Amino acid sequence: MQVRHEQLEVRSHGKGLYEITDDVQSKIDKNPVGNGTVTVFVQHTSCSIVIMENADPTARRDLEEFFDRLVPEDTDYFTHDAEGSDDMPSHIRMVLTRTSETVPIVDGRMQLGTWQGIFLFEHRRSPHRRKVVITMMGE
Amino acid sequence: MQVRHEQLEVRSHGKGLYEITDDVQSKIDKNPVGNGTVTVFVQHTSCSIVIMENADPTARRDLEEFFDRLVPEDTDYFTHDAEGSDDMPSHIRMVLTRTSETVPIVDGRMQLGTWQGIFLFEHRRSPHRRKVVITMMGE
Amino acid sequence: MQVRHEQLEVRSHGKGLYEITDDVQSKIDKNPVGNGTVTVFVQHTSCSIVIMENADPTARRDLEEFFDRLVPEDTDYFTHDAEGSDDMPSHIRMVLTRTSETVPIVDGRMQLGTWQGIFLFEHRRSPHRRKVVITMMGE
Repeated sequence: MQVRHEQLEVRSHGKGLYEITDDVQSKIDKNPVGNGTVTVFVQHTSCSIVIMENADPTARRDLEEFFDRLVPEDTDYFTHDAEGSDDMPSHIRMVLTRTSETVPIVDGRMQLGTWQGIFLFEHRRSPHRRKVVITMMGE
Repeated sequence: MQVRHEQLEVRSHGKGLYEITDDVQSKIDKNPVGNGTVTVFVQHTSCSIVIMENADPTARRDLEEFFDRLVPEDTDYFTHDAEGSDDMPSHIRMVLTRTSETVPIVDGRMQLGTWQGIFLFEHRRSPHRRKVVITMMGE
Repeated sequence: MQVRHEQLEVRSHGKGLYEITDDVQSKIDKNPVGNGTVTVFVQHTSCSIVIMENADPTARRDLEEFFDRLVPEDTDYFTHDAEGSDDMPSHIRMVLTRTSETVPIVDGRMQLGTWQGIFLFEHRRSPHRRKVVITMMGE
């Protein structure tokens, strides 16, 4: 059994879903963990890691629209707005989704279903460099 | 330390919660991992894995009603509807919940609380066969 | 590779976020797992474990207000109310957030970002003693 950590930087340019499936698989390919799990963890509280349908871009646009309406930027009772109107909504969207995903690895491959992709879900409007820690455990 | 993977197929027949706690424990019973964690991962983007109250069926019905109202099938701005009106809502409900749960194992038993059960949360109306990967790691 | 479990009891006194980051790190400090992951798992279905912004209390208050409005206690179609009007909303808030978080450990330290803290998110109004299982795996 072994444990290996890798770093990944994701550059975002506005709200939305950024697929990182291939980046995560590349980190697994470099390491001797053929059988176990990978945990993809983002070190921020204004973006998320989610598994989502990765075939049809309209699914991602509808998802983004849903979250824009569920947590509107112009919500009048928000008081945490030091970084602008997308500050508090970004924290809420993160809590409603996930900070990490854990995926099984078999024979060196993530066991994602046919339509599953791993995404960084950016909740801020301005460009950001997001730090992701990829932890592989197994044998 | 060891890692073991098992497959589980769950047959759903419409929206709702399907308890799989005993199925997961059965897989643990078959494997030599007495102390560690189990990760229950579903390989689809239109259903979820969640831990939920498993004693009172009214709690599950209220939960399903809440999600039907939070993400209505007749939402007018949804454009991703190739598979019908429950297509896009199913992806959003999955993102709002979870694709996997990880539970500690001590002395061969999942450390669930008294009222906790593991459920496949089906978001589609038609029958489906859902593939679940159960990964046990430990000693 | 080793696995270690620790117990943590968190006393809550009403709805809200209770930070447990230091308590989790203390458990890691006591155990010989310098490199791996920690899974923080709560054994209840009416509170959650979430990672959230830990610097500004207004962010936490806005988050609590958002959840109070998203899942109101006076929702007329809820039938699961044996334990009061905050009974069913607490289960829904738990399903919308998380029962556990998994965080990488490097050189004995959790790899949280600058503003990330681990919180027990209590959804019930009355005081509770909440049981948390902390599982460390690694080398």
